[in-house]
Amino acid sequence: MLKPPVAIVMGSQSDWPTMRLVAETLEALEIEYEARIVSAHRTPERLVDFAMNARAEGIKIIIAGAGGAAHLPGMIAAMTPLPVFGVPVRSKALNGLDSLYSIVQMPGGVPVGTLAIGEPGAINAALLAASVLALNDEELADRLDAHRERQAQAVPQFPSDLE
Amino acid sequence: MLKPPVAIVMGSQSDWPTMRLVAETLEALEIEYEARIVSAHRTPERLVDFAMNARAEGIKIIIAGAGGAAHLPGMIAAMTPLPVFGVPVRSKALNGLDSLYSIVQMPGGVPVGTLAIGEPGAINAALLAASVLALNDEELADRLDAHRERQAQAVPQFPSDLE
Amino acid sequence: MLKPPVAIVMGSQSDWPTMRLVAETLEALEIEYEARIVSAHRTPERLVDFAMNARAEGIKIIIAGAGGAAHLPGMIAAMTPLPVFGVPVRSKALNGLDSLYSIVQMPGGVPVGTLAIGEPGAINAALLAASVLALNDEELADRLDAHRERQAQAVPQFPSDLE
Amino acid sequence: MLKPPVAIVMGSQSDWPTMRLVAETLEALEIEYEARIVSAHRTPERLVDFAMNARAEGIKIIIAGAGGAAHLPGMIAAMTPLPVFGVPVRSKALNGLDSLYSIVQMPGGVPVGTLAIGEPGAINAALLAASVLALNDEELADRLDAHRERQAQAVPQFPSDLE
Amino acid sequence: MLKPPVAIVMGSQSDWPTMRLVAETLEALEIEYEARIVSAHRTPERLVDFAMNARAEGIKIIIAGAGGAAHLPGMIAAMTPLPVFGVPVRSKALNGLDSLYSIVQMPGGVPVGTLAIGEPGAINAALLAASVLALNDEELADRLDAHRERQAQAVPQFPSDLE
Amino acid sequence: MLKPPVAIVMGSQSDWPTMRLVAETLEALEIEYEARIVSAHRTPERLVDFAMNARAEGIKIIIAGAGGAAHLPGMIAAMTPLPVFGVPVRSKALNGLDSLYSIVQMPGGVPVGTLAIGEPGAINAALLAASVLALNDEELADRLDAHRERQAQAVPQFPSDLE
Amino acid sequence: MLKPPVAIVMGSQSDWPTMRLVAETLEALEIEYEARIVSAHRTPERLVDFAMNARAEGIKIIIAGAGGAAHLPGMIAAMTPLPVFGVPVRSKALNGLDSLYSIVQMPGGVPVGTLAIGEPGAINAALLAASVLALNDEELADRLDAHRERQAQAVPQFPSDLE
Amino acid sequence: MLKPPVAIVMGSQSDWPTMRLVAETLEALEIEYEARIVSAHRTPERLVDFAMNARAEGIKIIIAGAGGAAHLPGMIAAMTPLPVFGVPVRSKALNGLDSLYSIVQMPGGVPVGTLAIGEPGAINAALLAASVLALNDEELADRLDAHRERQAQAVPQFPSDLE
Repeated sequence: MLKPPVAIVMGSQSDWPTMRLVAETLEALEIEYEARIVSAHRTPERLVDFAMNARAEGIKIIIAGAGGAAHLPGMIAAMTPLPVFGVPVRSKALNGLDSLYSIVQMPGGVPVGTLAIGEPGAINAALLAASVLALNDEELADRLDAHRERQAQAVPQFPSDLE
Repeated sequence: MLKPPVAIVMGSQSDWPTMRLVAETLEALEIEYEARIVSAHRTPERLVDFAMNARAEGIKIIIAGAGGAAHLPGMIAAMTPLPVFGVPVRSKALNGLDSLYSIVQMPGGVPVGTLAIGEPGAINAALLAASVLALNDEELADRLDAHRERQAQAVPQFPSDLE
Repeated sequence: MLKPPVAIVMGSQSDWPTMRLVAETLEALEIEYEARIVSAHRTPERLVDFAMNARAEGIKIIIAGAGGAAHLPGMIAAMTPLPVFGVPVRSKALNGLDSLYSIVQMPGGVPVGTLAIGEPGAINAALLAASVLALNDEELADRLDAHRERQAQAVPQFPSDLE
Repeated sequence: MLKPPVAIVMGSQSDWPTMRLVAETLEALEIEYEARIVSAHRTPERLVDFAMNARAEGIKIIIAGAGGAAHLPGMIAAMTPLPVFGVPVRSKALNGLDSLYSIVQMPGGVPVGTLAIGEPGAINAALLAASVLALNDEELADRLDAHRERQAQAVPQFPSDLE
Repeated sequence: MLKPPVAIVMGSQSDWPTMRLVAETLEALEIEYEARIVSAHRTPERLVDFAMNARAEGIKIIIAGAGGAAHLPGMIAAMTPLPVFGVPVRSKALNGLDSLYSIVQMPGGVPVGTLAIGEPGAINAALLAASVLALNDEELADRLDAHRERQAQAVPQFPSDLE
Repeated sequence: MLKPPVAIVMGSQSDWPTMRLVAETLEALEIEYEARIVSAHRTPERLVDFAMNARAEGIKIIIAGAGGAAHLPGMIAAMTPLPVFGVPVRSKALNGLDSLYSIVQMPGGVPVGTLAIGEPGAINAALLAASVLALNDEELADRLDAHRERQAQAVPQFPSDLE
Repeated sequence: MLKPPVAIVMGSQSDWPTMRLVAETLEALEIEYEARIVSAHRTPERLVDFAMNARAEGIKIIIAGAGGAAHLPGMIAAMTPLPVFGVPVRSKALNGLDSLYSIVQMPGGVPVGTLAIGEPGAINAALLAASVLALNDEELADRLDAHRERQAQAVPQFPSDLE
Repeated sequence: MLKPPVAIVMGSQSDWPTMRLVAETLEALEIEYEARIVSAHRTPERLVDFAMNARAEGIKIIIAGAGGAAHLPGMIAAMTPLPVFGVPVRSKALNGLDSLYSIVQMPGGVPVGTLAIGEPGAINAALLAASVLALNDEELADRLDAHRERQAQAVPQFPSDLE
């Protein structure tokens, strides 16, 4: 049985409050996903298993979040030709700057499409995955257009206490 | 007539030495592209024209490079639902850190998949675009696999003067 | 009917606690203004409308605040010859350093006069606008002088518990 | 005899290669200026003289450039109600990041409109001054419009070797 | 009547919680001081008055604290040949990094001996002043030795819950 | 046949000018080593092979150098209980700050003993390995002592042109 | 009587909440240690005593934690050939970035194996010490393997609220 | 025989091109000094000897320069009650930011008056020492005043090619 098109992976349970926004955004767009914890450092075998088999299992896009020396997105990208989008989770000492550098500064040859640090990045990883899937799914493209339209409508014209 | 699937845009002629690597990598993978200069700041009308029409013209993926207060990738993403990948070009005073922050730190709602600062990012933007297109193009998937395989083979076992 | 001389724009409702200080400072100097929300990323058409028409509508100075990948001030400056002053709003992960770089590091050709991160920057954007308008408004110049004088008087001579 | 409307000041002779671009840009727009060296630290009396008398002498806008612990723009702004625009000059050890922080992070009450680090900032300080003066000078407004138009025209459509 | 040998100056009342530690440390060493608020930006005349007259009034060492674009220590040093020690007060957005750069990165010719950001810096400014005064005051030298000795004795041998 | 006690690995041939200093320092201390290129990203299988088998093959200490999003040291540490020492190689855009963060900011559970960015770090990785091996090798301990003694002797008493 | 194989030292009592994790991790692995406070700056004689005698007293590995201008690990490494592992303790103004730079950027010749800022670094310093001692202690090697295995098992497969 | 009042110490021969400016500035002010190399890390005994005996030998002020993990100034300050001024020497990877943090971020209790990174800091360390010695040496005070006066005179009024 094939897996859903989007896999959400994260380095630890503590990343879930951030990565949950990936899941919620995908749900809002009716995109199926699975979410799992794969620690590049504490469960490297799980990492290899996951990344080496992702394509064969039917996954199309991988969204990986991690913090600190965040190796998960890049190491997945090293082991699969699927598009990998990375979410730098905010870290305690360096506020996610270490996460960002560890994810975005990949060497030529192994790409990770990196989103913003923290919550905005999680939302956007889902939207970027949607935009990729929408290239070959007109209904999703319509839902994504509607989502963007609603988002635009939701921006008020004036600061609330001036209305 | 439809445009090629990948559009490379950059903020100025001076970004081309970096962005040329996008073009060369796409060529190596036999992916068609167009490359153009669109300055978000000096030619905002060109930006609006380009971004608003990209989907209708058949473009599937946009790769945008810019330096300093690098608004081009994010502003394109604001005006098209297509996937946008951003390349932070190295800047003079801040070495591309300003470019990186300006591209990657997008607010929730408008994603830009950001690659590394400079040349590695340019190569990887092309590879990420290839991985997206390969989701629905088996021949490209094969070429991408072969490219990755060649890349792995090209890594020597030992430092050159120890061989 | 002409608009007031100063337009305050901000990328989202969440910028208002900072940008409200622009409004309050203008009010203290009896300068008329309008304040509105224009998201460069979520409402790009509103951005184009606002920026392209600002001069014709009688606006003289634009004060724009935004956080993160803060493109609003620079994109307005790209579409109007009016003076644009930018306020980098403090962001969650990077404390406004991303906002600052995204606003201040504009390429040669499209200026944004940038103020300090957060509240001090908001107050100062209003004062800078006042200093510009005062060049041709002697009464405002007097009010601004008085404001500066009061401000100087308000600095105590000694730390409060040594008085 | 009144002074020209724009005063360019800089902390040392070594800032001139950067600040010269202010002068050249003003000349291109036919705006008169004077340029002088005022070291906040080595010639504080000259600083006081200059800043306290600037308005009475007919100066309308002050453009101040300095590097490192760059106190010149802020100290001038402390002593005159005229608009002050600051140019952070690139410094040796910290590449102008110290200059930027020292100029832009002014406390609420004393504004300095800060431009980008180095050459782009110098060009833009002149353009921002022009946009201010153009508020009450239609001929200058026309010249500024033409300058922006030429600037837009000068952006090539394609990278040079693809044309 | 001569002033006490140490003057503590700070840019605003809000610096006092930090700068109070300068006062307390001087008191512990029985060194007389005066403390006053001198805003380089809001009260530049007070700054000039203070700095130009400090030596004649009998002040020997000036300890100046400020935050953000912290110009106070450097501007005082520009106007007096007395030793000036600077305390970078922690700022809201940049945690005192802007204060540090603005104080320490003085150009060759005008020195400010800079201490650590925040409270440790305040304590140490007082101790450094004491070490300077102790060069010609044997009793103070003895008190300073005793202070250092007590400080060493106060370091426990073991973490408290292992004792 | 057992491998030598120290394995030097690096992410690419371009790291060798830095990592060569590891080799030279080990040689000066008569410690045997092997040096090889293992790209975490381009040759992940080689990485797994190397790291999973290192202990069984007799390797005792692994020194890993990499630049940018430097995942090699941490991923090796994830797959072997041997001590891993990491050398952040200087990178083009961020001067090795990205390398440093990617190597040192490992999560609790998987340690990498990190040395300085670039050449000093390479020399010190070898010396740290030597200090570990010397714990159970008195002859090596003597050679290390002698090395440190020579190093101390080599520090001149006075700047060369004052001697 | 010989000391235990691992010495934990820290610059002040305030480092203990971080460094306590070193102790707890060593205890979990049944490794004996002593913990003491040695301030490089306030008790330099204690530093010299400790570092010069550590090897003769039977200590094998030194784990040193400090914050701010964190000189303790490097100064110990200057005075003993034993392996020194450094833990950068989070500081108030700069979040431990100053601690990290002060510990990791040692010059060639005197190594400190540096771990992550704060708690993860403390845990990892203990684990790194364990991996060194395990090179010659098979029982410890088994305990360390078991610890790593338990650690891997403890990583859940799915975010908790999806299980 | 007593030593001269100022001791210049530096961590290595490679610091001399920077620290030579300390010597030259002292010579210009006719202040006697000695200059020596004391590596905190490679020659810790020399450090202890120097710092513990400095006061007794008649030294009054110590100027210490070092780069990277620059422990020399702080460790000297730990071992002498004399005023210590620190010069952060520019480092290869981090441009002296590591040197600055390692020198300036001293804990409360042990002060180092820190000057700017590199050459300006070296010049200013000498001037700060002069200002301290001038407190009790009227002739030196006069020479320092003259030096400052010459320095002010040397600032040209206009950029050279506008004169």
